[in-house]
Amino acid sequence: MTDTPDQASDPTGPDTATLDDIRRLLVDMPGPDLEAGVAAVAREGQLTKPADSLGRLEEISHWLCLWQGRYPPRADHARVCVFAGNHGVASRGVSAYPSEVTAQMVQNFVAGGGAVNQLAALADADLRVYEMALEQPTADFTEGPAMDDGECARAIAYGMMAVEDNIELLALGEMGIGNTTAAAAICHALLGGEASDWAGPGTGVAGAVLDTKIAVVSAGVAANKAEMSDPLNVLRCVGGHEIAAITGAVIAARVARIPVLLDGYACTAAAAVLHAIDPALIDHCLVAHLSAEPAHRDLAQRLGKRPLLDLDMRLGEASGAALAINIVRAAVACHVGMATFDEAAVSGRSAT
Amino acid sequence: MTDTPDQASDPTGPDTATLDDIRRLLVDMPGPDLEAGVAAVAREGQLTKPADSLGRLEEISHWLCLWQGRYPPRADHARVCVFAGNHGVASRGVSAYPSEVTAQMVQNFVAGGGAVNQLAALADADLRVYEMALEQPTADFTEGPAMDDGECARAIAYGMMAVEDNIELLALGEMGIGNTTAAAAICHALLGGEASDWAGPGTGVAGAVLDTKIAVVSAGVAANKAEMSDPLNVLRCVGGHEIAAITGAVIAARVARIPVLLDGYACTAAAAVLHAIDPALIDHCLVAHLSAEPAHRDLAQRLGKRPLLDLDMRLGEASGAALAINIVRAAVACHVGMATFDEAAVSGRSAT
Repeated sequence: MTDTPDQASDPTGPDTATLDDIRRLLVDMPGPDLEAGVAAVAREGQLTKPADSLGRLEEISHWLCLWQGRYPPRADHARVCVFAGNHGVASRGVSAYPSEVTAQMVQNFVAGGGAVNQLAALADADLRVYEMALEQPTADFTEGPAMDDGECARAIAYGMMAVEDNIELLALGEMGIGNTTAAAAICHALLGGEASDWAGPGTGVAGAVLDTKIAVVSAGVAANKAEMSDPLNVLRCVGGHEIAAITGAVIAARVARIPVLLDGYACTAAAAVLHAIDPALIDHCLVAHLSAEPAHRDLAQRLGKRPLLDLDMRLGEASGAALAINIVRAAVACHVGMATFDEAAVSGRSAT
Repeated sequence: MTDTPDQASDPTGPDTATLDDIRRLLVDMPGPDLEAGVAAVAREGQLTKPADSLGRLEEISHWLCLWQGRYPPRADHARVCVFAGNHGVASRGVSAYPSEVTAQMVQNFVAGGGAVNQLAALADADLRVYEMALEQPTADFTEGPAMDDGECARAIAYGMMAVEDNIELLALGEMGIGNTTAAAAICHALLGGEASDWAGPGTGVAGAVLDTKIAVVSAGVAANKAEMSDPLNVLRCVGGHEIAAITGAVIAARVARIPVLLDGYACTAAAAVLHAIDPALIDHCLVAHLSAEPAHRDLAQRLGKRPLLDLDMRLGEASGAALAINIVRAAVACHVGMATFDEAAVSGRSAT
């Protein structure tokens, strides 16, 4: 565990990546390891408890086995990644905070003062913070695409580099003033409905500022309609550097067989891009917590994900994902450490 | 942390206790420490996050200060207590498991094989298991009171002895074949409705066995109507040793200024007895998780408690309470460890 996160000032990774490279990658992703899953189910039924009485902890053990491709499951080495980016659309007055706060909060993370620092330390997890060219925000998406093809592909590739083979559980999150506006635009473009279904208070806007935010989401989706020919182009046109990096980290985690905990609204929107390509592409992800940002409930449901925690949190910065690491560890601890009925000489169910 | 829980074979503590001793104790219980609470709120507003963005974690820090009577709050030294008792009513065929399982599971806890062993170890908490005269179950409450006055008072007093001043957070739970039947009878007697509103699958009964369980709850409340003149007499007539011990532990924790995490249905029913005397008597308690036992949702709501976790667990043995220790620790870690806006030189909200 380190309290002093790494920083990376290189915004966008390899120079030559294109979105077609990413599309090619997605065609052949590893599936679930059914053999490991069967082993988990078999042991679960022998443990000293009524069937299913550990509820979602049992589900989690099974899920870890499927996606780690191993039995028994492990969750000792957890990493928390926070990607930080700035948004041209922030200049439209969609947030309660100025854009400088993104860089200031990155410095706060480096100094150990953020919520995620405390939560990662409590979870004994590595914390890495990735600063993505904060002085070069994306373009204002009400006037055209937020990113060009190469810029978006490089941001995805950059996020992929955060994933290393030795990690057993990956908690993802973001920091970026204006990014709930980008997340709302992604959801609106991918899932339809009204802009007002997807735009909410974010860091705490209401009234006229919220009206502006809704109008900006609507304008952004309208302005880019012609270019948003597939989900990756939605990400490119109305997303952001840190959101694209999360999409990349989710992809790389799948390849490396590392289960993923998604944080709140912006982070789940990054995964929604992959879900829109193929729902199975995020089967190795759980939504760690239900954000108090109202649209997160509907988004999680559309992705078929029931959040693990519901504690009215709406901070981002991977705080909810970091907090859920302990729930995953609890699942592993029970699955691996409990005695079986035979070992403990505990009677089974009465004949009925 | 110990994986080897203490056992205590003395069923019922001091010989001379009566329920009137308990009633006298309840008249003068410590209230919240408002000064410590104000200190928590003041710091919370200065931390580097939007107001309220840590949701219930902020609530928990405040609650700890009020009931620990100190600032800053602490939750390092946590204890998990599991009280085990047997029930005469189990002979009526209300459970999927035979009564021997209570003692077998206590041995499993002693050997380190239960779910709660793994969860307490993960939380770095003491685990204590209290075996309450398992060979002397309560009387079958369909034929009259489960306990006489002295027996119930001694069980309460026994639970009180589990609380020591140096504990900073207390997680309570139970083990006892038949005790969701007792819990249902307590709820039915205290809160009304139909027996079927309060009796559910427990360890996994359905169909004819569930019908029997409902009939037993109904018969128990009817048989003891004349004697259930106040909530402590409800506990005496249709409760059980381990449930009364939990009631006692909740009382002693209030006196010792130790906040309490309540586990599932039977444990919350033990607290409901105090709530029926005076709702403020359980203000130092949170419901740690929403049990999958259906009546727990309504019970928690009637007590004004929103469970911290909702993971479909229904195991008892303090498993949900032990799992929630980390949530409380997360609240303390953020409250105490985060930087303030001034310290971190992070800009506040934009003028609007």
